[in-house]
Amino acid sequence: MCSLKVLAFEDGSFSPSRKRSHVKTVLVGVLTSNFTITRVEVRDIEVDGLDATEKAIDIAKSLQSFDLILQGSIAYGGFNFIDPEALYHEFRKPVIVVVGEIPDNEAVKNALIKHFDDWKARWSVFNKFSQVFEAHTNPRENPVYVNFVGIDLSQVKDVLKSLTVFGRFPEPLRVAWIIAKSLSKALKTTSKV
Amino acid sequence: MCSLKVLAFEDGSFSPSRKRSHVKTVLVGVLTSNFTITRVEVRDIEVDGLDATEKAIDIAKSLQSFDLILQGSIAYGGFNFIDPEALYHEFRKPVIVVVGEIPDNEAVKNALIKHFDDWKARWSVFNKFSQVFEAHTNPRENPVYVNFVGIDLSQVKDVLKSLTVFGRFPEPLRVAWIIAKSLSKALKTTSKV
Repeated sequence: MCSLKVLAFEDGSFSPSRKRSHVKTVLVGVLTSNFTITRVEVRDIEVDGLDATEKAIDIAKSLQSFDLILQGSIAYGGFNFIDPEALYHEFRKPVIVVVGEIPDNEAVKNALIKHFDDWKARWSVFNKFSQVFEAHTNPRENPVYVNFVGIDLSQVKDVLKSLTVFGRFPEPLRVAWIIAKSLSKALKTTSKV
Repeated sequence: MCSLKVLAFEDGSFSPSRKRSHVKTVLVGVLTSNFTITRVEVRDIEVDGLDATEKAIDIAKSLQSFDLILQGSIAYGGFNFIDPEALYHEFRKPVIVVVGEIPDNEAVKNALIKHFDDWKARWSVFNKFSQVFEAHTNPRENPVYVNFVGIDLSQVKDVLKSLTVFGRFPEPLRVAWIIAKSLSKALKTTSKV
């Protein structure tokens, strides 16, 4: 299973103190095969915007060939989001969302209502994946919580176990997280090159 | 040997058609342990500038703990350079320079003379590492060519062999190369975030 070509998405950080409209961060897509990085693609996404799904599809198209997509969240860039169903619809490859905690759906919904006129459209995406399932990826660690499309729970558990080496998160997401965070940190202190 | 903490440096690309003074690219430092990425740090360096050694030292300081440094070149960012002796002097860890071809030292020297008033100072760094040694890292591939400080040739051969999985370049350099190239490509098309 670990020779699967896996595309994992993570987002960069952004400064919470700044006005959030028109603030951008990075969306990083890392393609791994056999636990090794083969490609990395980066796009900018707008914090609290609506472009993360489209940018994720763009990254996936440019990376072309993969067997599985991993998301570390539905939310990417604040309350911007990647819709796993849109990815599945476009590529017909399983998409697994892996999070570390049971999401507080009530808090997400309330925040959307408070901050966005289009909260209903956003919530409809979050809500589709609001029910999560426990998966034990590493016997020495806490479980992760998953949702998915194009694959069933027992396959999800198997594939995540086979992809997890350190801690409880699958390697492609762990590596994408390191790259996305270091990249957004560098972009804050680095002049445009 | 593959549980060594290895710090590998690679640089981003830059557009050769632009005026090179004040053009910048990225210097990426990737820390790996046991074939997996643990940290990534990025700085900007000036193409044909003189700041790559200083930025490499800055990256190494922020990554703190490592056993070995790998350089994919002396030249980083055109004719900017990382001096392996300066890294060794600062951190007292072995530095190995791994290149894919026997360098054309005459061509390097002539280019320096042609383009730089300070060519003697630059050449003195390149010249220290101009003599390379063949190392076979993968029996199915061509050799690589190495120079080094703080380690001997037989140790270099052993450690490079233990770090090489795909092709003929050690994993930390291969991964640093992928990240540096994709990052500089992204920075060209991405607005500052």
